[in-house]
Amino acid sequence: MKNTNIPYKIYLSENEMPKQWYNVKAFMKNPHPPFLNPATLQPCTKDDLRPVFCDDCIDQELNDTDAYIDIPEDIRSFYKTFRPSPLVRAYFLEKILDTPAEIYYKFEGNNTSGSHKLNSAAAQAYYAKKQGLKSITTETGAGQWGTALSMAAAFYGIDLTVYMVKVSSEQKPYRKEVIRTYGANVIPSPSDTTEAGRKILAEHPGTGGSLGCAISEAVEQAVKSDSCRYVLGSVLDHVLLHQSVIGLESKIALDKYGVRPDTIIGCIGGGSNFGGLVAPFMGDKLQGKNEIDFIGVEPASCPSLTRGKFVYDFCDSARTTPLAKMYTLGCGFMPSPNHAGGLRYHGMSPIVSQLYHDGYMRAVSVRQSEVFDAAVMFAKCEGILPAPESSHAIRVAIDEALECKKTGKKKTILFGLTGTGYFDLAAYKQYNDKTMTDTIPTDEDLAQGFATIPDIPQNRA
Amino acid sequence: MKNTNIPYKIYLSENEMPKQWYNVKAFMKNPHPPFLNPATLQPCTKDDLRPVFCDDCIDQELNDTDAYIDIPEDIRSFYKTFRPSPLVRAYFLEKILDTPAEIYYKFEGNNTSGSHKLNSAAAQAYYAKKQGLKSITTETGAGQWGTALSMAAAFYGIDLTVYMVKVSSEQKPYRKEVIRTYGANVIPSPSDTTEAGRKILAEHPGTGGSLGCAISEAVEQAVKSDSCRYVLGSVLDHVLLHQSVIGLESKIALDKYGVRPDTIIGCIGGGSNFGGLVAPFMGDKLQGKNEIDFIGVEPASCPSLTRGKFVYDFCDSARTTPLAKMYTLGCGFMPSPNHAGGLRYHGMSPIVSQLYHDGYMRAVSVRQSEVFDAAVMFAKCEGILPAPESSHAIRVAIDEALECKKTGKKKTILFGLTGTGYFDLAAYKQYNDKTMTDTIPTDEDLAQGFATIPDIPQNRA
Repeated sequence: MKNTNIPYKIYLSENEMPKQWYNVKAFMKNPHPPFLNPATLQPCTKDDLRPVFCDDCIDQELNDTDAYIDIPEDIRSFYKTFRPSPLVRAYFLEKILDTPAEIYYKFEGNNTSGSHKLNSAAAQAYYAKKQGLKSITTETGAGQWGTALSMAAAFYGIDLTVYMVKVSSEQKPYRKEVIRTYGANVIPSPSDTTEAGRKILAEHPGTGGSLGCAISEAVEQAVKSDSCRYVLGSVLDHVLLHQSVIGLESKIALDKYGVRPDTIIGCIGGGSNFGGLVAPFMGDKLQGKNEIDFIGVEPASCPSLTRGKFVYDFCDSARTTPLAKMYTLGCGFMPSPNHAGGLRYHGMSPIVSQLYHDGYMRAVSVRQSEVFDAAVMFAKCEGILPAPESSHAIRVAIDEALECKKTGKKKTILFGLTGTGYFDLAAYKQYNDKTMTDTIPTDEDLAQGFATIPDIPQNRA
Repeated sequence: MKNTNIPYKIYLSENEMPKQWYNVKAFMKNPHPPFLNPATLQPCTKDDLRPVFCDDCIDQELNDTDAYIDIPEDIRSFYKTFRPSPLVRAYFLEKILDTPAEIYYKFEGNNTSGSHKLNSAAAQAYYAKKQGLKSITTETGAGQWGTALSMAAAFYGIDLTVYMVKVSSEQKPYRKEVIRTYGANVIPSPSDTTEAGRKILAEHPGTGGSLGCAISEAVEQAVKSDSCRYVLGSVLDHVLLHQSVIGLESKIALDKYGVRPDTIIGCIGGGSNFGGLVAPFMGDKLQGKNEIDFIGVEPASCPSLTRGKFVYDFCDSARTTPLAKMYTLGCGFMPSPNHAGGLRYHGMSPIVSQLYHDGYMRAVSVRQSEVFDAAVMFAKCEGILPAPESSHAIRVAIDEALECKKTGKKKTILFGLTGTGYFDLAAYKQYNDKTMTDTIPTDEDLAQGFATIPDIPQNRA
């Protein structure tokens, strides 16, 4: 039953905003296997995680049973500075595509971080402050996560050190400057502030750094002090929990207008945006309440779901983190540097991996050049200049709508528009100059990556 | 009568959005004196303006009588891609300031142009298309206007050429790239595509260009062809008319919640944002219906209202445009290049000039360093990284709220947050590095500027 009086944008009123996050794990028949302590290969306990993460985040990470978890009032208060985000009916895109499909998108880019990352940054900075900690550390590559966390740290009044991949801090000096403006300390990584950094610098004096190394430095810095913890922007269950606010708001807005999505599409790198967007809809599917077609869209250059293995692997390339059972290209897999934007992670959220493995969702991989075709078409008719990451979802939403045009089916499509491309204009320049190319890993490239997956008993089953 | 249940953000529903613009001139006892044809020094006729501007815009420019002018459906449709903009209660800023004042801001930065400029770009691109024109031209300095117009031109399907001040196109390559992504042709100015450009290049081979020169090139290019017109982003009456949508939405939202502003604050460069924000409130004041304290905030480095003269002057530094009666520092005044962002215009909207001259508003000038102090304080508590231009208004809103703290008065303050600072991070870097300085023109600097005001009979009265 469709309501034909849908406005262009649907904003919830503030009292309609979610007061609880949605924990999809409570509805999974197969909760994902536990993280393993890399030293013992035994399931991680709270005590294993306590020196690294905030206590509340660990509780959330290990909670497989509670479907709803309260959002503290102080987080809801900060959420009000940038939420609710609009659910937009893409009338102009539909018109240009001349499709019978109805297309909606949930736009998470209307905040200074330019992405959905702020949803979890807010929660994690708050919990750190609540625990009485003095400071937090993190790493950032493209810079959206670092920006989001610097905003949250400024709001709650807690010190933040961001290890920023050196080459990014040089190529994106303005991202670095936003983070500094919010008062955070930005250290190009590798640095001489940690053992891990000094080791890399000694071995590779001129290196531009890597996300793996930045993670190692941030973790090392955090565990040094009892009043400091490390904060991560994707992959982990508690991050997906915080991001469920995206799906909850979408669901409330759609329910209010009597719209039921047939297809839900999100881009996937570490999985936080996709996991958050689909959470409550997926929970319903797991309970047999809907048959939504969930599509995760990944870059052909880093195809962890479509071409990866479902095994235990390290979450970082420096092989220091706990092991997670996930789809992975191998912690040593290096995605082609010519790929614009994020979605370059070797692994995938354990929750998303399990749902994919159990057949509750599909995955599609797309090439960068066709992603930018979609991005520019979208920008011109819908106004918003999308982030390259988000444009992966736009590409597949357009493809699905064009398929509807062929078949005459009136599907209702919802996709996640995770962020804006204001800091990705070097990539748009490549596209405008027609110098953008696609790189797809060969089977040999993948084999090299797979060879870096740890050879442990759990992977030999 | 104050309503205490004001939410953090007030979004109008789409059917509450204005269907007409507000023409404040209809309520002015002294409409501003007419533009003068620079050749004859007689009032400009429609025919004088027709080769340069679109017909509908000329009608609006010369309309001193109709209070309300319909917004065509196709413009309202495009407005829905980025409007309504939120009216935000600045709870967190109030809390940090510990002020009894209530502070509201109307945020116009939630669109890809990053500013209010899109309100008039939409209208002007639409009218050009409606007139059957093939193309439009404009100039851009900082790039917000060029971006906004490229978005509107893409939406309505009309070709656009943007003459971008060469030094800006080099210093802000990403701004240029956004404009290109929306399909516009960006030409660094001075260029060899026009007489004006070639002349400047011959005289000053290595020049980085100026806004004055870019205007001359854009106008020359437009008048060359019968199917092309020139489009301007500020100063003119029809631009302020289009921007009245800011004030109208603010007024509807405040009325809905029973809030009556005591003070309304906006930054002023050419005057389009300020003129648009205050329009309906000022119309009421002109009719004796309120006693609102209107404050225009200008940079101390370019103080056209607080230190300028109210005379006829050229709108461009190349001395080619019609003459406008306005507050001006002289069309040859060169504001210090160390000032960040916009608000560097030598003159002021004739409407705003007349209202100021007649005592219906105040003007305040502020220094750049204190503007950035306010910007960073605001970013940290309200989340949004403001544009340097907008931050002039934030500065004075904070000062007014602190004055309330002293006096104990519970004023209700509304200010315009015109845009975001995502493309102004070189300026934030200066601030963060503590290398930002203030430049205030000496009386001698001003005298040099005043010497460039045309010596015509109308100025000798």
